[in-house]
Amino acid sequence: MSETIKVGVLGSNGKVGQAIVAAVSDADDLTYTVGVDRGDALTSFVDAGTEVVVDFTHPDVVMDNLKFLIDNGIHAVVGTTGFTEERLEQVRTWLGDQPRSGVLIAPNFAIGAVLSMRFAQQAARFYESVEVIELHHPHKADAPSGTAFRTAQLIADAREDAGLGPSPDATTSELEGARGATVGGVHVHSVRLAGLIAHQEVLLGTSGETLTIRHDSMDRASFAPGVLLGVRQIATRPGLTVGLDDFLDL
Amino acid sequence: MSETIKVGVLGSNGKVGQAIVAAVSDADDLTYTVGVDRGDALTSFVDAGTEVVVDFTHPDVVMDNLKFLIDNGIHAVVGTTGFTEERLEQVRTWLGDQPRSGVLIAPNFAIGAVLSMRFAQQAARFYESVEVIELHHPHKADAPSGTAFRTAQLIADAREDAGLGPSPDATTSELEGARGATVGGVHVHSVRLAGLIAHQEVLLGTSGETLTIRHDSMDRASFAPGVLLGVRQIATRPGLTVGLDDFLDL
Amino acid sequence: MSETIKVGVLGSNGKVGQAIVAAVSDADDLTYTVGVDRGDALTSFVDAGTEVVVDFTHPDVVMDNLKFLIDNGIHAVVGTTGFTEERLEQVRTWLGDQPRSGVLIAPNFAIGAVLSMRFAQQAARFYESVEVIELHHPHKADAPSGTAFRTAQLIADAREDAGLGPSPDATTSELEGARGATVGGVHVHSVRLAGLIAHQEVLLGTSGETLTIRHDSMDRASFAPGVLLGVRQIATRPGLTVGLDDFLDL
Amino acid sequence: MSETIKVGVLGSNGKVGQAIVAAVSDADDLTYTVGVDRGDALTSFVDAGTEVVVDFTHPDVVMDNLKFLIDNGIHAVVGTTGFTEERLEQVRTWLGDQPRSGVLIAPNFAIGAVLSMRFAQQAARFYESVEVIELHHPHKADAPSGTAFRTAQLIADAREDAGLGPSPDATTSELEGARGATVGGVHVHSVRLAGLIAHQEVLLGTSGETLTIRHDSMDRASFAPGVLLGVRQIATRPGLTVGLDDFLDL
Repeated sequence: MSETIKVGVLGSNGKVGQAIVAAVSDADDLTYTVGVDRGDALTSFVDAGTEVVVDFTHPDVVMDNLKFLIDNGIHAVVGTTGFTEERLEQVRTWLGDQPRSGVLIAPNFAIGAVLSMRFAQQAARFYESVEVIELHHPHKADAPSGTAFRTAQLIADAREDAGLGPSPDATTSELEGARGATVGGVHVHSVRLAGLIAHQEVLLGTSGETLTIRHDSMDRASFAPGVLLGVRQIATRPGLTVGLDDFLDL
Repeated sequence: MSETIKVGVLGSNGKVGQAIVAAVSDADDLTYTVGVDRGDALTSFVDAGTEVVVDFTHPDVVMDNLKFLIDNGIHAVVGTTGFTEERLEQVRTWLGDQPRSGVLIAPNFAIGAVLSMRFAQQAARFYESVEVIELHHPHKADAPSGTAFRTAQLIADAREDAGLGPSPDATTSELEGARGATVGGVHVHSVRLAGLIAHQEVLLGTSGETLTIRHDSMDRASFAPGVLLGVRQIATRPGLTVGLDDFLDL
Repeated sequence: MSETIKVGVLGSNGKVGQAIVAAVSDADDLTYTVGVDRGDALTSFVDAGTEVVVDFTHPDVVMDNLKFLIDNGIHAVVGTTGFTEERLEQVRTWLGDQPRSGVLIAPNFAIGAVLSMRFAQQAARFYESVEVIELHHPHKADAPSGTAFRTAQLIADAREDAGLGPSPDATTSELEGARGATVGGVHVHSVRLAGLIAHQEVLLGTSGETLTIRHDSMDRASFAPGVLLGVRQIATRPGLTVGLDDFLDL
Repeated sequence: MSETIKVGVLGSNGKVGQAIVAAVSDADDLTYTVGVDRGDALTSFVDAGTEVVVDFTHPDVVMDNLKFLIDNGIHAVVGTTGFTEERLEQVRTWLGDQPRSGVLIAPNFAIGAVLSMRFAQQAARFYESVEVIELHHPHKADAPSGTAFRTAQLIADAREDAGLGPSPDATTSELEGARGATVGGVHVHSVRLAGLIAHQEVLLGTSGETLTIRHDSMDRASFAPGVLLGVRQIATRPGLTVGLDDFLDL
């Protein structure tokens, strides 16, 4: 007999929650048990024999959710934001020395975004030059994007570890802003264009060659494969894991 | 009998000059007559029956060259820089009302650069958003490039003619420089990367779709096809023409 | 007082129809009058003083719709498929010598697709080499796409008109299919990839430079700007126009 | 006192050899000792106290070169082609159980090509779909390129290890060749275009997102950084290493 993993969803009425319910229901090796949203009782997860709960809710409620899941030996895959170091420490305390639950908390479940950052980090020390271009729809409030900022930081750290100085740049006459923002010495450019969704390019260059790592997110569904990957592996990773990276075994 | 056009080169020992001598020699419909460089007599063009002379020399000598060619009824295709409105007016005076010579003076002979600008201009009025990214080797002194600056200006003019306001942009939190420079309201980003040569992208976007026009210059040879195109048509265009655009019949 | 154009929609309950109703309602210079779908009376367009009707319906009903609109002096912008030369001739006959209505019938309203084809056609004669890559979601049945096929044909015609032979190609050892399909001598490559929507690149190359024209369709909304452009201009173009190209004034 | 590594070059008069002599001479931490080409004595490496020799010569002579270098305790970094398993075994025998020399033999020293392959391999198991596009100048005889073929094989192996079946593809009507060649089930497309040099894209896709890894080689100098990386590390890697990958510590 082929066993499936029993999966529940917290925040099941939200846009993201609905997409996860659909993705879980579509997967042959997973069984959707029950969804819980504002006003519903968390105990329904226990009643339905749920093994893993996916939480995309709100910073105000996520800690209470986690306390309940850990107390009941249920695994958690969490995309809710707002986890400070203090909150993470609290979760570790709840889990204790011999955790029954695995808890994965990740700021970004798009596998391509995670891989892009990792590859950029790995490649950084082999290239004289590196710059980041991120391109988004024009409704975005911050420039650069959080992902681009984080990517540039990781690259800057990798270059410093490798003893690389700044990328070569002979610019002596610049129209203000043309060379972009700098994050740890890495130039970052933000494009805002109707018709785009969420895209990022890391460009690396040395004598006679360049390497480009590009990630395109076409719609909200792009977090689903990462969430399912977490759901499938969480039982084998008791305790707290921060970031999807460790689950990718790169 | 198949006639070929007799072509001479001014500045024939320079890097660009040599490339043009090679390109002319390779073309079946052109015959290379003679090259003239510092210290050589311009009269050798006449002696060799030269019909068209290509001039990639220096602002200090180009006006004397043009005077000689016009006086001798020879056509000129000129890539030398430094043509002010005053100099252009002088050339027009020399050509007179019934010019025997055609003179083409162009700041950029890379056909792809000329086409990119034209297409960007034509497309501009159909798109809510437009931005320009130019990418060059790290030895470049100015940012943005002259071509990107000119492209942005042409786009800005086309948008104004079409009654379009600024591209939508909800940025409220910007790391300084992230959104690039602006030229006539068009955002322009300059990337400087080892391994690159000279590249430019115009990105246009509206609801659900984007159009990208990209030009890549891989080496100096990229001006050759534009120069040959000028050489082949100049006899049919007496008088002064500024810019390769008019020869492209778009 | 600022006048707006009164616009109705045929097939207003379909996915495309709903998107057009929304786009018309959002536009300041247009007023949405009424939608008609299966079972509704066409006369409601007249009753509401409709000036332009957009038709995205079905080949089975579109001819009756057009007959009614032309008889009532209403302009039509039509995205419905299945127009043979015979059908087009019938529409011309209905319009007569002194047409009161303008009728625009176009197979593709995505402005970027139309511009891409036009630019590829214009650029073709300046480049030794050209190839087309189209990239779509993996549910597509035909390879290459209809748009890529048409683009390649237009390029092939432009090359022939310019007296260009085949693009250079020294391939002597080919794994079957590696060099793609050929349409009029132009190589066309079809990529099918989960996560993609509808994308096309035309690559043109000559000595030392390449020009790339890329169109990305992110969602169904990409036809809306083209439809609105047609709606705004149709009153000034009595008679039949086939294809959006003529409305773009390139 | 800052020590530099003493480096000699075999095949120093060839195009590649000259580029390596230049790159070694430019590096602050390396000292160029002597170049050897056809007819020159290998003993001059010993006389000049050479520690590492770079060999870009010919299959006919490379084995004799390696025998000499190993006998004299000199390290070797080898880009010459034609190494069969039999030849590699011979080199291992010469090196013996307690090798004094390190020998690095690599088919491709462009770091970007090596990284592209590695990243494609690492990413392959997370994506439903993958295809490879390689783009080269039109003088290339084989399609697909050796690098694209190898990349597709590595991806196919990684997918098989992960238990992935074929990429989804609903194509029912194909113009012959449109979907490219297949290598281990992975579709590979070969573009040949004037103006291009050597380029490759790996496209990976899953629900709502794609990841693209692109490598652009602009000129022959692109192997130099990889060769220098080998030269700097070879003393710490006694015995035989095949492929630059292991030196990259990914």
